[in-house]
Amino acid sequence: MQDSNHDNHHTENVQDHLKQVESLLHKHALLEMVAHRQVIPREDRHVVVDSLLHKQHLAELHRKLDDLHPADIAYILEALPIDQRLLVWDLVKSERDGEILIEVSDAVRDSLIASMNREELSAAAGQLDTDELADLAPDLPQNVMRDVFKSLSIEEREQLREAMSYSEDSVGALMDFSMIHVREDITLEVVSRYLRRFDELPDHTDQVFVVNREDKFIGVLPINLIVVNEPELSVSSLMLTDTIQLHPEEKADQAAQAFERYDLVSAPVIDEDGKLVGRVTVNVVLDFIRTESESDLLNQAGLREEEDIFASVWKSAQNRWLWLALNLCTAFFASRVIGGFENTIEKFVALATLMPIVAGIAGNSANQTTTIIIRSMALGQITQGNARRLLIKELAISGLNGLVWGGVAGLFAYFLYHNVALGVVMTSAMLLNLLVGAIVGMIIPLALQKFGRDPAIGSSVMITAITDSGGFFIFLGLATIFLV
Amino acid sequence: MQDSNHDNHHTENVQDHLKQVESLLHKHALLEMVAHRQVIPREDRHVVVDSLLHKQHLAELHRKLDDLHPADIAYILEALPIDQRLLVWDLVKSERDGEILIEVSDAVRDSLIASMNREELSAAAGQLDTDELADLAPDLPQNVMRDVFKSLSIEEREQLREAMSYSEDSVGALMDFSMIHVREDITLEVVSRYLRRFDELPDHTDQVFVVNREDKFIGVLPINLIVVNEPELSVSSLMLTDTIQLHPEEKADQAAQAFERYDLVSAPVIDEDGKLVGRVTVNVVLDFIRTESESDLLNQAGLREEEDIFASVWKSAQNRWLWLALNLCTAFFASRVIGGFENTIEKFVALATLMPIVAGIAGNSANQTTTIIIRSMALGQITQGNARRLLIKELAISGLNGLVWGGVAGLFAYFLYHNVALGVVMTSAMLLNLLVGAIVGMIIPLALQKFGRDPAIGSSVMITAITDSGGFFIFLGLATIFLV
Repeated sequence: MQDSNHDNHHTENVQDHLKQVESLLHKHALLEMVAHRQVIPREDRHVVVDSLLHKQHLAELHRKLDDLHPADIAYILEALPIDQRLLVWDLVKSERDGEILIEVSDAVRDSLIASMNREELSAAAGQLDTDELADLAPDLPQNVMRDVFKSLSIEEREQLREAMSYSEDSVGALMDFSMIHVREDITLEVVSRYLRRFDELPDHTDQVFVVNREDKFIGVLPINLIVVNEPELSVSSLMLTDTIQLHPEEKADQAAQAFERYDLVSAPVIDEDGKLVGRVTVNVVLDFIRTESESDLLNQAGLREEEDIFASVWKSAQNRWLWLALNLCTAFFASRVIGGFENTIEKFVALATLMPIVAGIAGNSANQTTTIIIRSMALGQITQGNARRLLIKELAISGLNGLVWGGVAGLFAYFLYHNVALGVVMTSAMLLNLLVGAIVGMIIPLALQKFGRDPAIGSSVMITAITDSGGFFIFLGLATIFLV
Repeated sequence: MQDSNHDNHHTENVQDHLKQVESLLHKHALLEMVAHRQVIPREDRHVVVDSLLHKQHLAELHRKLDDLHPADIAYILEALPIDQRLLVWDLVKSERDGEILIEVSDAVRDSLIASMNREELSAAAGQLDTDELADLAPDLPQNVMRDVFKSLSIEEREQLREAMSYSEDSVGALMDFSMIHVREDITLEVVSRYLRRFDELPDHTDQVFVVNREDKFIGVLPINLIVVNEPELSVSSLMLTDTIQLHPEEKADQAAQAFERYDLVSAPVIDEDGKLVGRVTVNVVLDFIRTESESDLLNQAGLREEEDIFASVWKSAQNRWLWLALNLCTAFFASRVIGGFENTIEKFVALATLMPIVAGIAGNSANQTTTIIIRSMALGQITQGNARRLLIKELAISGLNGLVWGGVAGLFAYFLYHNVALGVVMTSAMLLNLLVGAIVGMIIPLALQKFGRDPAIGSSVMITAITDSGGFFIFLGLATIFLV
């Protein structure tokens, strides 16, 4: 039974693996309790038949883990609480440590690295390619990096230095060095002979790169063309020269868009002298896109970085504090705006009940505007030509919303307090604040981008600050003029 | 000069293409004005030398567009206002219409299809593969679909029916039918001869699929293995049997996770009888992931679907209304909660200035909790075993935040109004409402998922409703008891 999992692990769902590991860990924990003569919960006693089982279960867990793909182990490690995570981590065969460390999220990686000593870390790092090592390097202690560096060849040291020299959001950071290159003046026959000298080609080799005698990139030769064409044809007659070329300093985001747009599997990376320095493959782009979109969602809620869901309360709280502190400041400011109208509210307490409506709806509407604008900006679709046009459109939508929903809110106020003037003030304040929302919802992301900041971060705090304080000011101000 | 763009369009940035097209359109518009004897703005007069230029500019635009990849044209169409968009659309060679319609976003596709007649649409649809046709079908008029259906072979009709039978979020919807399959009992030599009969292999053919005499899937043979191995080896000796298999009814999301985790380029799709029915390729997965992550961001802001940024005010407003209406309802409810405490506020108007702080910060904190939980749920990392543990952790974080930020807010209240009891009420209300936020931030997404709803949609309205109304109720309630 224990071996029945062996051959079909890829067709199973990774969640099933997680459940199996959890159940084995549960049994293991119970057996530990037996070993330490602790009291076992009644419903779990049937599991503990015999203390021989203890070793059996651990062995079963071991086997189960050996069967799994490193990415699946990474997934399971992320889903386990720290104590169980470290138990499983100890059971994983040490020759796979490197691969798994590359796969886990940054937060979880920290917890794993903290449990390893210098020798283990050096051994794990030694299993990696230079481009993977560059990703891991910032998390490794300096003495480990020194060990690793010593063990590299001169070429590998050069690659590692290069890979680490690029900023995290550049093509250079996505690049690997496992590309195959050939000369243009040979035949497919010769290329095939050359390729047969490899036991296997590097992953994602959908094309080999064609370079001239000075190592300058001149084109690509898709593997599929080698397969469908006669062996006597020359590389130069088949190679494609009109292809995507990436540059190491280019934004990773641009490269990702190129992969999506042109359906690439791999693309050459060329330096300013026209030399082939590496390649980017689609699996790395996929990870990049997923990570980016996740950090967009996290940033929107003011989470500074991905959280290990089992991190300590203290660590998680720190991840969330900046955002709460910022929001508290803007809330204090809004509170002082209201404070300026205390006399008005004292005379007309209905205002206190209605003012959150004015602030809230404009905030929602402004966030819709910003979401649309930030998305179009990310796609590069906002040009000087259409920015004014879009602002007018957003103002028109807000005007329409102001009449419709402001009207509804005005009626709500009128029916509650039987005061026509209050209803009119409510509608006018909604309309004005929605217009304010459209303007700031459009201008703040554009301004952040102009100053070189990421518009997805921070836009929403600023917008909410303005629609809140602005809404209170407009509504209470109009009320002071027309009602009191 | 006009031909200098011709060969290097892939190395240029797509934003540059957009700028070039915009500038050509601008010149074109000026020349149209000349033709109609309109007044040209002074700063633009230098462009209009001669009415011969008119045709020249249009021809240049035409050439420019012919040079571009369909995906780039799609991008440009999305970034242009409707009138210019339709002008460019008319200039695109009609034999590329189909490809481009597949590439543009749904919203923009509607505007393009609306400008085409039955013959044009049938011709465009006729250029597509059956899996692409299945994507386009819901947007096409019925009579066009009838024309297209008649023109298909029996096999293609069967494929189209199959592709259209799967729900949008299933593997079946991502699948294409351009897979190559071979038998296990032949040699690589024979496979190579078979492959050479193709002019080119279908895109993303990184492996051929191995089937037995009943068309049942038995394994895959990576193209790279054909390349590196000796021709006399047999398929059965090299094929991999322990590989990912997708099923057409499986969730597309699961397939995307498999592509990410195992770095796939293509994967076979197998039906319940073990027959090979199609394949999924990484480019489709990339689009799927991008679309999903965008719709997450849009849904968070309450945008029901992707907006054509140049859609009419009316259409855009409708896209945003449901959200605003929902929020208005919850705001009305919160307003009535405050209304219940009008007497208290009348006696103690400071409460009106402080109450938005209590509501707002808890809302922010609850949204942080929900974001973390929804992300972990999407990854399948929340199990029965750890859900309680996570709730306790979130409560602990909120408790800590309540003491820290509630304390700050309490001091703020005290220093403003020199009232110790007010400060204590403020701190207590913040603490309690943050705890409420942690509970609802955790339970609402879990409950939505339990009832089969997407937790990313609607969680935030419900959470804000509770932290707002709850915050007002707790703060004003405590104030009524202890201050009045």
